[in-house]
Amino acid sequence: MTQIKQLVSQDEFVGFYLLKELEVRQTNSTPPKDYFDIVLSDSTGQLSAKMWDVSSTDKETFFPMGLVKVRGIVQTYRERLQIKIGQMRLATPEDGVSITEFIRSAPIRPIDLVHTIKNTTASIVNDEVRTIVEYCINKAEEKLMHYPAAKTHHHAYYAGLAYHIVRMLELGEFICRQRPFLNADMVRAGIILHDVAKTEELNARLGVVSDYSVPGKLIGHIALASSWITEAAIRCDIPLESERVLGLQHLVLSHHNTGEWGSPVQPQTAEAVALHYIDSLDAKLQMVEDALDSTPESESWTPMIRGLENKAVYRTPV
Amino acid sequence: MTQIKQLVSQDEFVGFYLLKELEVRQTNSTPPKDYFDIVLSDSTGQLSAKMWDVSSTDKETFFPMGLVKVRGIVQTYRERLQIKIGQMRLATPEDGVSITEFIRSAPIRPIDLVHTIKNTTASIVNDEVRTIVEYCINKAEEKLMHYPAAKTHHHAYYAGLAYHIVRMLELGEFICRQRPFLNADMVRAGIILHDVAKTEELNARLGVVSDYSVPGKLIGHIALASSWITEAAIRCDIPLESERVLGLQHLVLSHHNTGEWGSPVQPQTAEAVALHYIDSLDAKLQMVEDALDSTPESESWTPMIRGLENKAVYRTPV
Amino acid sequence: MTQIKQLVSQDEFVGFYLLKELEVRQTNSTPPKDYFDIVLSDSTGQLSAKMWDVSSTDKETFFPMGLVKVRGIVQTYRERLQIKIGQMRLATPEDGVSITEFIRSAPIRPIDLVHTIKNTTASIVNDEVRTIVEYCINKAEEKLMHYPAAKTHHHAYYAGLAYHIVRMLELGEFICRQRPFLNADMVRAGIILHDVAKTEELNARLGVVSDYSVPGKLIGHIALASSWITEAAIRCDIPLESERVLGLQHLVLSHHNTGEWGSPVQPQTAEAVALHYIDSLDAKLQMVEDALDSTPESESWTPMIRGLENKAVYRTPV
Amino acid sequence: MTQIKQLVSQDEFVGFYLLKELEVRQTNSTPPKDYFDIVLSDSTGQLSAKMWDVSSTDKETFFPMGLVKVRGIVQTYRERLQIKIGQMRLATPEDGVSITEFIRSAPIRPIDLVHTIKNTTASIVNDEVRTIVEYCINKAEEKLMHYPAAKTHHHAYYAGLAYHIVRMLELGEFICRQRPFLNADMVRAGIILHDVAKTEELNARLGVVSDYSVPGKLIGHIALASSWITEAAIRCDIPLESERVLGLQHLVLSHHNTGEWGSPVQPQTAEAVALHYIDSLDAKLQMVEDALDSTPESESWTPMIRGLENKAVYRTPV
Amino acid sequence: MTQIKQLVSQDEFVGFYLLKELEVRQTNSTPPKDYFDIVLSDSTGQLSAKMWDVSSTDKETFFPMGLVKVRGIVQTYRERLQIKIGQMRLATPEDGVSITEFIRSAPIRPIDLVHTIKNTTASIVNDEVRTIVEYCINKAEEKLMHYPAAKTHHHAYYAGLAYHIVRMLELGEFICRQRPFLNADMVRAGIILHDVAKTEELNARLGVVSDYSVPGKLIGHIALASSWITEAAIRCDIPLESERVLGLQHLVLSHHNTGEWGSPVQPQTAEAVALHYIDSLDAKLQMVEDALDSTPESESWTPMIRGLENKAVYRTPV
Amino acid sequence: MTQIKQLVSQDEFVGFYLLKELEVRQTNSTPPKDYFDIVLSDSTGQLSAKMWDVSSTDKETFFPMGLVKVRGIVQTYRERLQIKIGQMRLATPEDGVSITEFIRSAPIRPIDLVHTIKNTTASIVNDEVRTIVEYCINKAEEKLMHYPAAKTHHHAYYAGLAYHIVRMLELGEFICRQRPFLNADMVRAGIILHDVAKTEELNARLGVVSDYSVPGKLIGHIALASSWITEAAIRCDIPLESERVLGLQHLVLSHHNTGEWGSPVQPQTAEAVALHYIDSLDAKLQMVEDALDSTPESESWTPMIRGLENKAVYRTPV
Repeated sequence: MTQIKQLVSQDEFVGFYLLKELEVRQTNSTPPKDYFDIVLSDSTGQLSAKMWDVSSTDKETFFPMGLVKVRGIVQTYRERLQIKIGQMRLATPEDGVSITEFIRSAPIRPIDLVHTIKNTTASIVNDEVRTIVEYCINKAEEKLMHYPAAKTHHHAYYAGLAYHIVRMLELGEFICRQRPFLNADMVRAGIILHDVAKTEELNARLGVVSDYSVPGKLIGHIALASSWITEAAIRCDIPLESERVLGLQHLVLSHHNTGEWGSPVQPQTAEAVALHYIDSLDAKLQMVEDALDSTPESESWTPMIRGLENKAVYRTPV
Repeated sequence: MTQIKQLVSQDEFVGFYLLKELEVRQTNSTPPKDYFDIVLSDSTGQLSAKMWDVSSTDKETFFPMGLVKVRGIVQTYRERLQIKIGQMRLATPEDGVSITEFIRSAPIRPIDLVHTIKNTTASIVNDEVRTIVEYCINKAEEKLMHYPAAKTHHHAYYAGLAYHIVRMLELGEFICRQRPFLNADMVRAGIILHDVAKTEELNARLGVVSDYSVPGKLIGHIALASSWITEAAIRCDIPLESERVLGLQHLVLSHHNTGEWGSPVQPQTAEAVALHYIDSLDAKLQMVEDALDSTPESESWTPMIRGLENKAVYRTPV
Repeated sequence: MTQIKQLVSQDEFVGFYLLKELEVRQTNSTPPKDYFDIVLSDSTGQLSAKMWDVSSTDKETFFPMGLVKVRGIVQTYRERLQIKIGQMRLATPEDGVSITEFIRSAPIRPIDLVHTIKNTTASIVNDEVRTIVEYCINKAEEKLMHYPAAKTHHHAYYAGLAYHIVRMLELGEFICRQRPFLNADMVRAGIILHDVAKTEELNARLGVVSDYSVPGKLIGHIALASSWITEAAIRCDIPLESERVLGLQHLVLSHHNTGEWGSPVQPQTAEAVALHYIDSLDAKLQMVEDALDSTPESESWTPMIRGLENKAVYRTPV
Repeated sequence: MTQIKQLVSQDEFVGFYLLKELEVRQTNSTPPKDYFDIVLSDSTGQLSAKMWDVSSTDKETFFPMGLVKVRGIVQTYRERLQIKIGQMRLATPEDGVSITEFIRSAPIRPIDLVHTIKNTTASIVNDEVRTIVEYCINKAEEKLMHYPAAKTHHHAYYAGLAYHIVRMLELGEFICRQRPFLNADMVRAGIILHDVAKTEELNARLGVVSDYSVPGKLIGHIALASSWITEAAIRCDIPLESERVLGLQHLVLSHHNTGEWGSPVQPQTAEAVALHYIDSLDAKLQMVEDALDSTPESESWTPMIRGLENKAVYRTPV
Repeated sequence: MTQIKQLVSQDEFVGFYLLKELEVRQTNSTPPKDYFDIVLSDSTGQLSAKMWDVSSTDKETFFPMGLVKVRGIVQTYRERLQIKIGQMRLATPEDGVSITEFIRSAPIRPIDLVHTIKNTTASIVNDEVRTIVEYCINKAEEKLMHYPAAKTHHHAYYAGLAYHIVRMLELGEFICRQRPFLNADMVRAGIILHDVAKTEELNARLGVVSDYSVPGKLIGHIALASSWITEAAIRCDIPLESERVLGLQHLVLSHHNTGEWGSPVQPQTAEAVALHYIDSLDAKLQMVEDALDSTPESESWTPMIRGLENKAVYRTPV
Repeated sequence: MTQIKQLVSQDEFVGFYLLKELEVRQTNSTPPKDYFDIVLSDSTGQLSAKMWDVSSTDKETFFPMGLVKVRGIVQTYRERLQIKIGQMRLATPEDGVSITEFIRSAPIRPIDLVHTIKNTTASIVNDEVRTIVEYCINKAEEKLMHYPAAKTHHHAYYAGLAYHIVRMLELGEFICRQRPFLNADMVRAGIILHDVAKTEELNARLGVVSDYSVPGKLIGHIALASSWITEAAIRCDIPLESERVLGLQHLVLSHHNTGEWGSPVQPQTAEAVALHYIDSLDAKLQMVEDALDSTPESESWTPMIRGLENKAVYRTPV
């Protein structure tokens, strides 16, 4: 089966792919005819595709995020590759293919990522802090197994959120060893909780965010996480006035650093300062790494990266 | 008894005043001598004062926010009035003066303000909304009787917060009548709750804010109010997912309008838009009214007003 | 006759509509053929439409803002409704339809709006203020009967400008009663004059702004209104140095609050502060109300609203 | 007579100077004694001075902007020169000194500057433009003879405004020759009118601005100049709709380039673009020239210059 | 031969033109057919063109920046002129046409522009300054003969960079005469060097920038020019610590005035201040002149000009 | 010998200290008397001090950054400790004290820091990169042994610059292991070179910056470092066009991330992105650690920290 990344112009191929996007459009002919404007993807990348002269049955059969078997040919259109689909059908159980093989994923298994997060939580010494983190992890757990960290910005793939947390935890451990004045419990807790309410802010399936939820738009993951902590404290009988509750809420509320970026307060504890910069470092480097990965080796520049103020990145020559 | 506002240069006077500020300083003479740098105030205004050659006993006797009887003379120093204190003693119970007579206060009695707020709360039709507002009002009630609305910006006096709420409620009633598409329950609830957590954010006594509390600095009244709503819902068995909980949290979180001003989300319901502009209108006009009130009639311009982008206001001639 | 708002997919219909926009386009076929890209509207809304295979006569017959009788069918194109026009002809006098029935309009009759504005003007006590306002109202009167308040931002419909003024006057009366220190003459005059020069800034017909006039681009309605006041004073023998002339010019010049928004000076009288916030409150709430009105009841979110920093508004559930 | 710029530490001297600033202060001794905190100036610069033990008569005799004869000694205080005044008396007619010898002044005689401005005005070809410029020049003439161009920013000295205009006219002539597509009438008129209403915006005496006038604060020189043009057109029977009136108003309204800097509209004619950059070039270079002039030759850096974003300027070595 | 600027609708014509842009596109018909989407230009302007039904040979024959002979007809498409190409062939040597006749060019011959720049360089008195300028001019010389000054902003045509320098030198001479305190050597050197590294920053051919070079993106012309000066000093044995080296580097580094516009330091010498404003004045007026030139006389407004904050310019009526 | 940090009110003490600041001032008495306004420091902190009635000899004897023996008494002045100096003399060789014992210093010996930097340099694999880094390190070496990293912002103490580099190298090694796609040579080189030209930008002695040098103000350390690389390449015969030269210059030029913060280009290689965030993380955490260290354990809040947007930091309770 041919992987998307390996297709070159003029290839004729047959294979299974994910119908990542599908729209019915009309040609400008009179009368106009329906065709499909499609994005096909697998775990190695994605390509746009056209399927001409679609029937009413076709329009009822195919839908976004479905798995399909495609016979097609690769063409060049405006200097980019594009697939012209000859034949297409839905995958069936007999095909023995699973959707998870076709989606972009963190490079570590979700179950291992969540395991690391739980182990780290268990290692938190302070009872109140550990209890609150456990409560929030339990609340999010099912989604932590597959949620991306963002819609497009960074770690936008299956289990991207858990992967982001785990890489930050590695960096956090290093910083806490390098600077022992930091409270390691709070650094760990802040890393685990800072984006945990993205599981409530975003609607996502298979690592792809479709949109923001209503609470996501009206409250946002920053204030949502603060409410989760309030909830955890009340449910676990921890006094709301506890310095630990206060400190954890400060960590999540301040982690975007400025009001302009959505934080109602700015970092004012050592751990909050550490959290913001650990988060930035991991997110920005991941954006760069992902952009370079998905740019063909032959090209020196990635496309522009929104999270890097719309700058493209130049591939450092070896 | 001579009121501060009536004192003119060369007046010799005796009267009771509030020692609003007091600092011990030293003259530059050799050896240096201690003196008091003082701000005396009553309900009509305040003046700076000096008391020279203070003794060790004086330094132990007098303290800020104490009530004192003063014999003094009014001088002009660098074009401003200043009191030179001849004699000063603490007020005693026999003097029959009460500190509340000497502080700046909202023009309506606190008890009446809180009564209005409670009545309005009781008039809220939706059970969930009313229950949550009642919970928060109870939590704040004792402080609502006397807290100012801010440190210096606006309504910075005894019961200023409750006064701000009540004037906003009047305006809110008008707007809801003018635009029936607004949900009056939510407008009322938003007005009552928007600044309610200033009672946790600020440390205040007698209408004067001494500083921000630790939660005030690390969380801020906006996110604190959101947590109060979470707490109210849990304690009163209202589901956290209720649209009403969400709507109330959105109101308090968005009422500063932009991230730059501390709101993690921007107004995205009709009532949230209304709340922000009702709040601005009331706060700005109160700043202007207070500035004009405390500027002598003979002067055309008020001092610069920080909350109006540091502009002075010109007194419209009659 | 079927109203635009009631049309659903597959409807075949005949009716009169306004040709709000009309452009001749060419198909991509070889040779290309002309077709009309059209927006049809009535007082309840608007829909895009196509008319294929148009003749030379058609291209000479139809023009934007004309009234037409249409036979058509409703189709769905890219998830939106679109009309395919079968037949179309110009409306004739015999049809007994009038263009004003087909345009979006303020909910109060223009004649009543202007009546209210004139009555309020007559109630201004100060002779100089009243005379200047009357002069400006006379200068604008004919256009006040139908001008919108803006191109797209807010009150963008027939008599929208007068409607905006009248709602602001209601709010102004309330505020003047609530805060008697405000000079009611100046508040009323400021409200009536603040946008009056939009009638010179914009070119509009039937409540629709086609573009900005040359003075609109080179001077802008803010400085134009200031010049109107200068002109009124000279023509009516009021000294240019009068405090009233100065005060009125300050009101119009400062009503956008900041230089960034086009005001060369910032509000520095109580009435100027009031005017700016009354204007904001009315304009923002009208944007929200209009956006909710023109969004189908079944949808929770309005489209993004440019005047609300591009935020969509969520419909508060009943 | 010793000039301020020539005084060095330990000099004992007698001379006539301008009492540019004078404030009565009190020492910290008990009882405090009055002394004068003074700024003495002549055309070469200024120095601060103290006069100790002043009498009641002294306090009634001396006033700011008076001319005095001083006997004093130069001391060093906190690394700066400061004069200790031994004796001081008011200058009398017999002294034969004139205040204009003691103030900082443009390097060209005011009468010659105004002559150049009038000649240039007379050379304007278009009748409407010339008439309006003449009207405005007449309105300002008396003040044009001595007004500074700003409070502190640039050309802050006697006849600084006229000097600024004349230098800009020289530059304007050059640019019009270099780029004949520019309308020379409009460039000349724009240069002459752009700051003409500073004569109404500022209160100044002897080249020193004491403060902004009430119209200066509430309207500002930009909108004032636009009103002057309206007034000129009406008084001289030029139609307000004339393209020339419009063009001149656009020039003055847009000359600060952005809303942030006080222009309600941005330059949108070739001449308006030229005017803004000619104004900037002249003003910025004059700031630099003045700062270098008043910095001792021995110092490499001027003080920070507010109009150059608070940067100091380094003296280019010869 | 018909010039682009003279073509009107319905013209049938034959002529030589530059194929400024060429893209192969496909029609929406089934199967899609290839056609050329073309921009034809000569020295008077440019027009878009279509050539339908292109063959494989056509696709191999034609390329951007080639010279072609075209038979075509002018049509109107969406209110704009567009050429429908009937026949097209490559120009041959026998046609006797040269590409330089077909491109937009500075109004002065490149050889004369470079001659002026070299003469001015030779007139620089200070040896170090002159030597460094000569070194840089030599480094850039070949490109100075034809490079534009920018991609689209200003002077975007053949030899536009040299033309910009020469006009600035004229202005610089004037300013140095008007203000003799300026160091004329440094003003001249600054003008010549400020944009000289655009020849390294941009990839350009025939006055058209195709893109930024890698050093252009990673270093930028400002820091590149500073490195050129370092290089010149080392190669010509001028000490790097020389005040002249420092002064020249400061000139190029600061000429964009603020960090926001790419200058790592702000102008802090008189000559650096002069350079920035001379550069702005020349660039902005050239944008305006070019925009007016390429707008038909019959139109009052130019298109929006990006370098003037996206404002259109109004043609001052004669 | 009593350390500064241990002094409490009323202590009488004798000890050696550094005269970190010294100014001669005058009392307000008549005639005024000279006294010293002093800052005494040792490695544990600093305190202000007064020495009254100083003689002419005293004024010639003492100077800033001198080492002195002091007999004094600790007083409280405006709630802060202050030393009243009874006797003071210069330290002599016989006292056996060395100035380096009295200054604030990085917690690692300078020689070890520089050793680490040189070892890391030696480990760079690429010849061009290593050669350039070595050249620059040699150029700076003597100053690397003692220069602070900034005037006040962060690492403002003896060898602070080398300490900052070494901590960043530790973090860089971690990141390169965590993300092997990064070019470790370039990360190491970027870290070592990014601030190396601070040794030319700042004038510093004993870890204290007195001011910026002339090249520091006119060029800045960012463009200076870029010139060092140009110089290194030329002197070491590495082609200026080498991708390595380009890459290193990009690293130093972009490390402040935005134009607003002084970088003429933004990070556009993976290593440049890494460098900026490693720099931020280390600098910000060091500011916090230093601020907490120098705040008494008994206080919850540090003073405001300029580099953290003027926020104070709250000490996380243990």
